[in-house]
Amino acid sequence: MENPLAGAPSPDIDLHFLRRALNLAAENVERGDGGPFGAVIAQDGRVIAEARNLVLAENDPTAHAEIQAIRAACRKVGHFHLENCVLYASSEPCPMCLAAAYWARVTRIVYANSRLQAASAGFDDADLYRELCLPAAARRILVAQRTLAEANAPFAAWHNSAKRQMY
Amino acid sequence: MENPLAGAPSPDIDLHFLRRALNLAAENVERGDGGPFGAVIAQDGRVIAEARNLVLAENDPTAHAEIQAIRAACRKVGHFHLENCVLYASSEPCPMCLAAAYWARVTRIVYANSRLQAASAGFDDADLYRELCLPAAARRILVAQRTLAEANAPFAAWHNSAKRQMY
Repeated sequence: MENPLAGAPSPDIDLHFLRRALNLAAENVERGDGGPFGAVIAQDGRVIAEARNLVLAENDPTAHAEIQAIRAACRKVGHFHLENCVLYASSEPCPMCLAAAYWARVTRIVYANSRLQAASAGFDDADLYRELCLPAAARRILVAQRTLAEANAPFAAWHNSAKRQMY
Repeated sequence: MENPLAGAPSPDIDLHFLRRALNLAAENVERGDGGPFGAVIAQDGRVIAEARNLVLAENDPTAHAEIQAIRAACRKVGHFHLENCVLYASSEPCPMCLAAAYWARVTRIVYANSRLQAASAGFDDADLYRELCLPAAARRILVAQRTLAEANAPFAAWHNSAKRQMY
């Protein structure tokens, strides 16, 4: 088997991990567990988590490959932040997964297929990016605030809590 | 105990469920399981899932209250779409949770505290909304595409798969 890292004067580890993410995506279609998406998280050049999209298998709309990979990597390192980690995704992360990567504080993200290429496969992530960047009143899903006098109470409790830890 | 729905000619069920989400948020601070956030999902006016933010307890940066509630509601209904469901959140959903609500196809979202009120408690979701709406080159986290000849293979397999099911 060809080792893509062998013999190269400047081995392109990014392409190596992206190929692994693409293989996971293809494997996922074969299994029928979810969409054609895979993800890998590497820390200091070593894989610490791999995942596939499990939306169909788990009836979980949040079980995108990147979310699954972030969860698995956090379990591995025992922390909710992923220091010095790169997220490799077979396709450009949707806004849910991109925001999750920010919460996890990954260092950078590399992907193979763009949101437009994913759209051609029936996944209109570009549309979702447009929706999220619209003012609330212009979105398809109604998102509305209701003000309550007691709404600040959880924040006040958090401010005063000895268990408070920022994430 | 006062029943907020009793005796009202036009009971405000939205405020009722928002109060429950705020109670879950306050309870979460007391337990120290995560940030001061709670969420409720109601289907046809009845609660089908409740959740708290478990980021600290589970070392999971994706375990926001809304994500946990969507996952629990989907387990309850046995499907990855939530028909006729309303998501009630103690605070305006961050982009991760808002996108998750789109994937889950909730009907609408109601929240108590705005992203600016959350920012005053140390949760700068407004900043995250700005980041996601920037062009990739302008973001704090580098998000880059690498093109590979074989990148389309998972999409082609998906297109031809008998197990394909859009979500």
